[in-house]
Amino acid sequence: MQEARKLLAELLGTMLLLCVVIGSGIMAERLAAGNVAVALLANTLATVGGLYILIEVFGPISGAHFNPAVSAVMAVRGELHGRSLLPYVSAQLLGAVLGAWLAHAMFDMTILQWSTKLRDGTGQWIAEAVATAGLLLVILRAPPGRASAMVAAYIGAAYWFTASTSFANPAAAFGRMFSNSFAGIAPQSVPGFVLAQLAGAVTGLLIHEALCARKPTGLTDPQ
Amino acid sequence: MQEARKLLAELLGTMLLLCVVIGSGIMAERLAAGNVAVALLANTLATVGGLYILIEVFGPISGAHFNPAVSAVMAVRGELHGRSLLPYVSAQLLGAVLGAWLAHAMFDMTILQWSTKLRDGTGQWIAEAVATAGLLLVILRAPPGRASAMVAAYIGAAYWFTASTSFANPAAAFGRMFSNSFAGIAPQSVPGFVLAQLAGAVTGLLIHEALCARKPTGLTDPQ
Amino acid sequence: MQEARKLLAELLGTMLLLCVVIGSGIMAERLAAGNVAVALLANTLATVGGLYILIEVFGPISGAHFNPAVSAVMAVRGELHGRSLLPYVSAQLLGAVLGAWLAHAMFDMTILQWSTKLRDGTGQWIAEAVATAGLLLVILRAPPGRASAMVAAYIGAAYWFTASTSFANPAAAFGRMFSNSFAGIAPQSVPGFVLAQLAGAVTGLLIHEALCARKPTGLTDPQ
Amino acid sequence: MQEARKLLAELLGTMLLLCVVIGSGIMAERLAAGNVAVALLANTLATVGGLYILIEVFGPISGAHFNPAVSAVMAVRGELHGRSLLPYVSAQLLGAVLGAWLAHAMFDMTILQWSTKLRDGTGQWIAEAVATAGLLLVILRAPPGRASAMVAAYIGAAYWFTASTSFANPAAAFGRMFSNSFAGIAPQSVPGFVLAQLAGAVTGLLIHEALCARKPTGLTDPQ
Repeated sequence: MQEARKLLAELLGTMLLLCVVIGSGIMAERLAAGNVAVALLANTLATVGGLYILIEVFGPISGAHFNPAVSAVMAVRGELHGRSLLPYVSAQLLGAVLGAWLAHAMFDMTILQWSTKLRDGTGQWIAEAVATAGLLLVILRAPPGRASAMVAAYIGAAYWFTASTSFANPAAAFGRMFSNSFAGIAPQSVPGFVLAQLAGAVTGLLIHEALCARKPTGLTDPQ
Repeated sequence: MQEARKLLAELLGTMLLLCVVIGSGIMAERLAAGNVAVALLANTLATVGGLYILIEVFGPISGAHFNPAVSAVMAVRGELHGRSLLPYVSAQLLGAVLGAWLAHAMFDMTILQWSTKLRDGTGQWIAEAVATAGLLLVILRAPPGRASAMVAAYIGAAYWFTASTSFANPAAAFGRMFSNSFAGIAPQSVPGFVLAQLAGAVTGLLIHEALCARKPTGLTDPQ
Repeated sequence: MQEARKLLAELLGTMLLLCVVIGSGIMAERLAAGNVAVALLANTLATVGGLYILIEVFGPISGAHFNPAVSAVMAVRGELHGRSLLPYVSAQLLGAVLGAWLAHAMFDMTILQWSTKLRDGTGQWIAEAVATAGLLLVILRAPPGRASAMVAAYIGAAYWFTASTSFANPAAAFGRMFSNSFAGIAPQSVPGFVLAQLAGAVTGLLIHEALCARKPTGLTDPQ
Repeated sequence: MQEARKLLAELLGTMLLLCVVIGSGIMAERLAAGNVAVALLANTLATVGGLYILIEVFGPISGAHFNPAVSAVMAVRGELHGRSLLPYVSAQLLGAVLGAWLAHAMFDMTILQWSTKLRDGTGQWIAEAVATAGLLLVILRAPPGRASAMVAAYIGAAYWFTASTSFANPAAAFGRMFSNSFAGIAPQSVPGFVLAQLAGAVTGLLIHEALCARKPTGLTDPQ
């Protein structure tokens, strides 16, 4: 029962996160009339605000991972039961797809679609690894009560300082695959992103341990 | 007497909220020279800042609803006396119109006017339902002292990720009807928006209860 | 001695505030290539960040008024000694001019100059009255420790929702008179602005009292 | 051992800071299509978010200086052991170069390059002195737990109100020298910037002492 609430929280949270990312990308692209920097600025601000409130709302229930790489690291650290990992990841992936479809429904677009935007090459993969390592470092070292603001601020910065606009989340890559819009990623580019993200997550965990553990992490803290 | 202060707070707060939303829309449209994305960015930032301070200023007096859908949910939950609901809603609707008129006075526009901007269709109604469900979820689950920042951040995101720019508030729809400007809505589009908002509010309340109640809500907390 | 520190704080704080407002206006105008909305967005963000840190830095020393209208209201409320009012206002006015000149020095402009930008008419005066009333309401009702964030957020919103871009401060009007740039105001427009600001300050104080006093105010609180 | 962790923190933190500043500059310049104000807005927001989280993450370990001028002032004040100054500065300079190179790797650019962007003249030097004086004042007077938000907000404002876009950091000047991109600075312009920054740091310390010391500083506080 307790477990069902957690999975509902991960599903709803990841759904709304993807709905925010993809929906604001569609809105921004429509309004920006070709000015990509302005579109990405709007996409960034919406994502920052959305992440902040989603982590506040769902964090006390499920930890607000919304991200298989985060859940995997939490399982490695013993902060998530090993047997919860697969259900968590499943809820996140399902939520991600539903979020893309909800965005399409709001913007009067075909619900089922696939992105054709290729995102690959060494620079993109380094970027995803850096982005995910940074995200894990932020999550693992956030002081109590500050994880929501810090993750939001970090992703806002990473939309711009990484060459890939920082997906940093296998569920995000999965969900964005279903949207042929500003925030989309072609299916054939997803495996490269996910591998880079997992490498980044491990790197972030190792850097965290080299700096010495602070425990427990901000995200799992009851606030 | 205590009640009069609350109604004054709801009236002033809703008036200033609409003045911020409509006034910044007018300013943004005038300065942006046709770049709608830049205009909406400015409109968003002004709304975020305005909501944050209005909830801080009026929250300790009236709960800072500024929104009939929020007041109705609070009445259902027993956090607002049933006999206060109609006065609250009346103060909000009156404040909303006064706010539109105050914005017009500042910008040297005809005080009394009607919007001609049609906003309807399935996508818009889904968007308003999603926007209002999210708003209620944020309000009902905000940790003490964070409702102001969270509602502001949420609405900032929702201006972009919902197809309707997230009115999420029947009083806002009512007041914006009186302004033939960037933030306006034609009178014939208002009923659809309000119905969608009420459906969204109920949905938000149900999701909140499925996730289990945290009580009391952030907005009614004395801080 | 204690008094000298306070006056130094008001002088430095007002100087840096005007330097931020005018300097960022010059930078924004130079870079924005005629896109006034983008220029005002940059001007807004710089002012928000600047106000936040200036109030945090100087608040514990002098109250961080930086504004004769605020100091006058504090004197009326007995939170500033009556005999300190004139020295406070003098330090603010001197600081304001020095701030304009410091901005000019950084941007390789003629130090001594006068604005030719007329700002007048009923709309502008209503706007300044609304802006200053709102500012006083925010200051008088800010919860302890939140005045810095709230004043910054408020002014950020008011740059857009008031027709005058919210000077809301006689010292700001005085200092901006010395800068023929984006943020300037022609000397002949200053008296109208100052009168409107004082009317607004009184209005803000009256609304605050109608809502019942919270005391002491956020700005004078030792944090 | 404890010392090695601190140096690792300064190296990683300065590396990531420069990666954020330079990487977001590259991304912004590429997307903005010649609109420099929009590019600097994006660069500003990324830097603000990045600084906030880097100070939160590394502050509890090393103080999160990332800046030789800050470390020097801390050594003068006895908050950093004199024998740690040189190792701190070395870690910062090394981190700064690595950060530039990491940004280049992500954006598929030649790793080793030199900026050709001249930044000099009296206005620029006054700007760097003002920027660094303000930064020190913010750091030395930040209330406990607010240094991260205040430094981030300050630098965000200073990107716009100083004519130099506020490097305010000899390690930043050093690292940006290695990037022929939006955020770069030609090697021959670096000495002028560094001298102005050191003069500014001394000025900031003197103003702080004239206002009376608050101790210990926010950055070195264990939070």
